[in-house]
Amino acid sequence: MINAVGRDIPDEILKATGKEVFQGIHYRDGYTYKKDGPVTRCVSDNTKSKLADSIHDVLIKCNIKDGMTLGFHHHFREGDYIVNMVMEEVHRLGIKDITICASSLGKAHDPIVPYIEDGTITNIQSSGVRGKIGQAISSGKLKGLAIMRSHGGRVRAIESGETRIDIAFIGAPTCDDYGNCRGIGGKSNCGVLSYALVDGDYADQVVAITDCLVPFPNFPAHISMTKVDYVVVVDAIGNPEKIATGAAKPTTDMRKLMMADYCTRFVVNTPYFKDGFSYQTGVGGASIASTISLAKIMKERNIRMRFGVGGLTKPMCDLLANNQVDCLLDTQDFDLDAVESVKDFKHFRISAGEYANPFNKGAVVNKLDFVILAALEVDVNFNCNVVVGSDGEITGAQGGHPDTAAGAKCAIVIVPLLQGRIPAVCTEVTAVTTPGESIDVVVTDYGIAINPKRQDLIDCMKGVDLPFKTIEELRDIAYSIAGEPEKVEFDDKVVGIIESRDGTILDVVRKVKEYTFADN
Amino acid sequence: MINAVGRDIPDEILKATGKEVFQGIHYRDGYTYKKDGPVTRCVSDNTKSKLADSIHDVLIKCNIKDGMTLGFHHHFREGDYIVNMVMEEVHRLGIKDITICASSLGKAHDPIVPYIEDGTITNIQSSGVRGKIGQAISSGKLKGLAIMRSHGGRVRAIESGETRIDIAFIGAPTCDDYGNCRGIGGKSNCGVLSYALVDGDYADQVVAITDCLVPFPNFPAHISMTKVDYVVVVDAIGNPEKIATGAAKPTTDMRKLMMADYCTRFVVNTPYFKDGFSYQTGVGGASIASTISLAKIMKERNIRMRFGVGGLTKPMCDLLANNQVDCLLDTQDFDLDAVESVKDFKHFRISAGEYANPFNKGAVVNKLDFVILAALEVDVNFNCNVVVGSDGEITGAQGGHPDTAAGAKCAIVIVPLLQGRIPAVCTEVTAVTTPGESIDVVVTDYGIAINPKRQDLIDCMKGVDLPFKTIEELRDIAYSIAGEPEKVEFDDKVVGIIESRDGTILDVVRKVKEYTFADN
Repeated sequence: MINAVGRDIPDEILKATGKEVFQGIHYRDGYTYKKDGPVTRCVSDNTKSKLADSIHDVLIKCNIKDGMTLGFHHHFREGDYIVNMVMEEVHRLGIKDITICASSLGKAHDPIVPYIEDGTITNIQSSGVRGKIGQAISSGKLKGLAIMRSHGGRVRAIESGETRIDIAFIGAPTCDDYGNCRGIGGKSNCGVLSYALVDGDYADQVVAITDCLVPFPNFPAHISMTKVDYVVVVDAIGNPEKIATGAAKPTTDMRKLMMADYCTRFVVNTPYFKDGFSYQTGVGGASIASTISLAKIMKERNIRMRFGVGGLTKPMCDLLANNQVDCLLDTQDFDLDAVESVKDFKHFRISAGEYANPFNKGAVVNKLDFVILAALEVDVNFNCNVVVGSDGEITGAQGGHPDTAAGAKCAIVIVPLLQGRIPAVCTEVTAVTTPGESIDVVVTDYGIAINPKRQDLIDCMKGVDLPFKTIEELRDIAYSIAGEPEKVEFDDKVVGIIESRDGTILDVVRKVKEYTFADN
Repeated sequence: MINAVGRDIPDEILKATGKEVFQGIHYRDGYTYKKDGPVTRCVSDNTKSKLADSIHDVLIKCNIKDGMTLGFHHHFREGDYIVNMVMEEVHRLGIKDITICASSLGKAHDPIVPYIEDGTITNIQSSGVRGKIGQAISSGKLKGLAIMRSHGGRVRAIESGETRIDIAFIGAPTCDDYGNCRGIGGKSNCGVLSYALVDGDYADQVVAITDCLVPFPNFPAHISMTKVDYVVVVDAIGNPEKIATGAAKPTTDMRKLMMADYCTRFVVNTPYFKDGFSYQTGVGGASIASTISLAKIMKERNIRMRFGVGGLTKPMCDLLANNQVDCLLDTQDFDLDAVESVKDFKHFRISAGEYANPFNKGAVVNKLDFVILAALEVDVNFNCNVVVGSDGEITGAQGGHPDTAAGAKCAIVIVPLLQGRIPAVCTEVTAVTTPGESIDVVVTDYGIAINPKRQDLIDCMKGVDLPFKTIEELRDIAYSIAGEPEKVEFDDKVVGIIESRDGTILDVVRKVKEYTFADN
């Protein structure tokens, strides 16, 4: 069945998943449903201890068995030890048919690929995957389906009961013996635990894994003891060097600086740029540069930001330090400056649900004026792809991309016209991961295209000295330089689905066709 | 059927409520159940406003109808306007058969008695009631049953789905237009919103009522916008003079000072009194005096408290200000000093569930060393009554009494041997509201009784110069002074049940017999 972004979703996938095709970003606004609840084992006896001896011990205590769904969070990013540590023990116990429901998976998790190959892991639900897991999925090695969800979409899936997590594993930089977890402190400091909060709320069993046990009460708890069954102390939950990195140096790439300049000049000419505006940006070089240049103009014009949201980096935290923003709302910290900033009185932690869940009574993204995003590809319908590489392999993550794009009054995608030798503006993206309906502006190094449905923004920009073009013109320039890219050859076999934040299907990901020689 | 505290619970009440009789404080430890979830209406469209024009308007928007259950919290105490304001409008709309599920009700709510009498309100669930509502229930005017629950018990009832709240009303000292509520700020400052958090989490519809609308985002939110459907701005949500009072002057009542001294000397001679101990106390004169005298000894012996819990008052907050405690965990603020202390970096808000729910994975009360409590009556089995007056009328609240008593390693009840001319230590309490199993020590002005099941504490006190007596001796002294009190005459009709924190029935409350003259 063809969905609202023109993608053909095979009937067998609709049947197998019980899902509908994507029907527009606000299709489910006003939809009423009953939230799920976890199975909870009561602890009222004050003599009970929650401490378990080891990962092995806690898996036994949790009655780990075939077919379970395990929850993980990705705040430790490429420094995460938790997923591998747990899956190694699950594998050792001979457990099969595990579904991993992670807020994201990266190259740090390459070691679990053998467990995909041997059937220990048969389903993966994640914002995205990178590295060898992506290759394994794209080459058809996962027995079940990979489901790629946005950060808000994951919360929706769990809160609605679509995904039930049997055991959630919370990597906790600090934890007390009763399970109060904090993202800050210890030696594996990640700042916040926002993505894991829904695991705490909805998983039947919750295991806190820490390398820094602190005295009770570890308050303010980011995840409360009232939701934690067991606490395991291990030597290390992550590699501090890879969890948060030192702040990226401001880019000196002229192309990125130019795009940042275009973006900022666009932003300041919209009606949303006024005292009290709100703003989110990603971690790409151009995004970071645009925050820096925006801060300068805010200062010149005496305009103050009400709140900044993210996935935070130093330039956003500098706004707080320099008193240019009232507060920051934080779901993830990308660098050490952001981690450190968490201690600021006006740097607030929010859960992934508060951030982006379309199935609650209103998330922070709904209150965004601007979001500045990146993309692997954008097509002439403004559809974005941030998950599937131009070679057809899964190598990215939805993250908050579709959530913030849907919520923000002005969603801007910054993308170089050519990614290496590949046109980033194209006729049709390899996979639709954010619907064009929610993208308002595309900024490239060759010009800026405004989504024709935003006539109001087009009108605003009359007389503004920026290189406006249509999206088709941008595509044509790209193709004229690099040629029209050849379509990736896919098998029929569907290896994954790109879920819209509301749970409908935006697109499918198919197995990449193996390269065959003519004489075979 | 006779329950574990020897009370006969009528079969028809067990049948009507579907409840079991009380079987001991840890009967349900390890019990496994599935938590309930609210019916949620999704808001993903960023153009929607949550503002409603009036209480009337919001009731219409919520489709108020006969038989609904409405949730309220009592942080505004005797200064609360919310309950009356909402119920007046419900009554005006001609709605009948409402169940009120409040964290507590007081004399401020006398104006709703006519709505009990006319069938607008037919069921009341509360920690307790005072004033005319108590009289109305005890004289049989409530059509249904009054259910008296502890603070932890209310959370249990709601989270387990036993009580489903259709519409919760959150009185919010400050709120933004998207529903982020805070207990602090504005003109009706109550400090925290702890009792209302479960309403936010589990009510199908949540209405924030505020007299101080602030810019988005009102962070850190005590109740998140993600749980709030509507925001109503009114002139006043409470009477600031009656919400939090100025700190009570330290008592000069020699009897109370003596009991406080006994209590403190008992505490310091237990093995729990050591560096890192935890402590909770109530708001009575003797309790407050014992906190003050304990602080003095802590200073002398260089002993530091790890955390204090409450229902907080100035003497507890002074411990924080004087650096004698690491942190405070706050569910309610009784005076202006406590409200002001909420701003302290180490003064942490906790939900009623975190505080005391026996049906989660471990509440704060489980980690208490000491709790110092009051009571209306204590009997020779150490059972306490804090709800039913000696005249048989409901005039008190369970509050956190049964929760903290069950959780704390050492639960001490301070009670004057005579309350006026009524023996407070007696053969059998008018109603059992906290089981004697969880009470370790009774301190009176005539001596101290240790529960015989606590042989360890009895052993500790050998050689300690305190007037130890058996509980029977205390009772006998009381009876020798004031005579054995006559039993209150009750009708057979059951008007209310005293629920144990785990949902079983501790006791029932019967209609008080109308006084009849002999010649009638």
